[in-house]
Amino acid sequence: MSGLLAGIEAGGTKFVLGIGTSPEAVTARHVIATRNPETTLDEAVRWLSSQGDIAALGIGSFGPVERDPARPRWGQILDTPKPGWAGCDIAGWFAERMEVPVGFDTDVTAAALAEYRYGAGRGKASLAYVTIGTGIGGSIMVDGRPLAGAGHLEMGHYYPQRTDSGGRFEGVCPYHGDCLEGLVSGPAIERRWGASLSELPADHEAHAIVAGYLAQLCHAISAFGAPEVIVLGGGVMKSPGLLKQVREASERIEGGYFPGRERRSIVSPALGEDAGIVGALTLAEEAMHGK
Amino acid sequence: MSGLLAGIEAGGTKFVLGIGTSPEAVTARHVIATRNPETTLDEAVRWLSSQGDIAALGIGSFGPVERDPARPRWGQILDTPKPGWAGCDIAGWFAERMEVPVGFDTDVTAAALAEYRYGAGRGKASLAYVTIGTGIGGSIMVDGRPLAGAGHLEMGHYYPQRTDSGGRFEGVCPYHGDCLEGLVSGPAIERRWGASLSELPADHEAHAIVAGYLAQLCHAISAFGAPEVIVLGGGVMKSPGLLKQVREASERIEGGYFPGRERRSIVSPALGEDAGIVGALTLAEEAMHGK
Repeated sequence: MSGLLAGIEAGGTKFVLGIGTSPEAVTARHVIATRNPETTLDEAVRWLSSQGDIAALGIGSFGPVERDPARPRWGQILDTPKPGWAGCDIAGWFAERMEVPVGFDTDVTAAALAEYRYGAGRGKASLAYVTIGTGIGGSIMVDGRPLAGAGHLEMGHYYPQRTDSGGRFEGVCPYHGDCLEGLVSGPAIERRWGASLSELPADHEAHAIVAGYLAQLCHAISAFGAPEVIVLGGGVMKSPGLLKQVREASERIEGGYFPGRERRSIVSPALGEDAGIVGALTLAEEAMHGK
Repeated sequence: MSGLLAGIEAGGTKFVLGIGTSPEAVTARHVIATRNPETTLDEAVRWLSSQGDIAALGIGSFGPVERDPARPRWGQILDTPKPGWAGCDIAGWFAERMEVPVGFDTDVTAAALAEYRYGAGRGKASLAYVTIGTGIGGSIMVDGRPLAGAGHLEMGHYYPQRTDSGGRFEGVCPYHGDCLEGLVSGPAIERRWGASLSELPADHEAHAIVAGYLAQLCHAISAFGAPEVIVLGGGVMKSPGLLKQVREASERIEGGYFPGRERRSIVSPALGEDAGIVGALTLAEEAMHGK
């Protein structure tokens, strides 16, 4: 291979930039704040270009985005409430200024791709990756590729069954109220209980309620996608004991029903914080090979 | 092509047998009652073998089944409450007696395959097919293949949000209580309101309640799989006006959120009652070509 791989994990509050000789060999990284598109993208181009001879760039972006290369708006950010960013042609901007092949997908799909190839999905045919943080987003990898059809997945926005009817919490999602993201994203937990899950005492009801909803998410992922492994990442999952509670609740509500359930598991990310940038570099590598 | 395609839509109450010169050209069909495995399979072999020179057989079976050819139990019915059928090696039985290549999948995946290739999915890259009848089952087709990982999908068994909290109905699913199948399958509707949806007056609350749950199903299918078209079939969907109500409720709860929503639609099966047998013949054709 001649030249370096460049990756961008484009988030709503920060852009993580990375350089690697392969997706698994990150040699430099740099974080910049997300401001208006011009300032942010310009700063990203300058840092990346200063790192040496770049062969290809991969971008995992906050969404919603157009991820289908066959569509005219490919590489753009679609309707986002984030000021100035709706309609931003993020892939086109970099392609024009850096004159390299650009791979593009959602941030969560990039992370899913990384976990599938190099993390918790090694040796598995299918994987779901979900991040539970400021928002809730997920992606499913099957036979080497992300599942997508008309647009990308938005599993954070399905409506789970309400299991906490006493003192009903209306949810914080501006589009759906009490969809999953409205109920158990980081901001939902803060709004409801005035603290993050990690800050609440171990015997606080919040732990079981959040675990119950995430168990429903895993149940729904199994019902609609049947992946071999479900990876739960993001800030909320750092709360001690939460993964174990999710597994137990998941077992309970599943009722011993799903075919192949002995081959399914719920795990933490193997790449930790690196999934996003490793995924972006993987997208760069694919773009370099014309995939 | 030399020889005929044979297909079996293996259901819990009846087996539909079919013969075709291609998946779309069904030349003969025959229905037999589902009794114990030996009697039923034997009768099926006798009828199919009497129809001429069979080149390959396709089976779409009630489940749960092992659909992965790489697994030792491929072609078997797994844990079913149906007496005598758990562990029945249905594909093996036919392969041994008819000495032809056998294609095998769930009944709903066979129907999904048929709608995808020859029905509502023509020209689409992805499709979900759901049957709402005695049970609720669905399958998602992407890039020419059914989505599956560790076992097949079981979307009828996800838990929707309860929208009818007054006079709470506990649901009829023996595994999950008020999962979707427990709430709006044919038997659930009968149990709750003492009649089928078609038999209830047009202004009965049941119509809006059922439509609301099926709209949640469509919303969840979009969130977890994002297919271009969702096909809703099965006995319950024959209730006049239901599809329209589902579409309207789906629009409402979606909140204008999903990327690519202008390319998504909810439709009736284009093949009607034929989807199952056309799908079985398609599985036969694939088996003949060694897929």
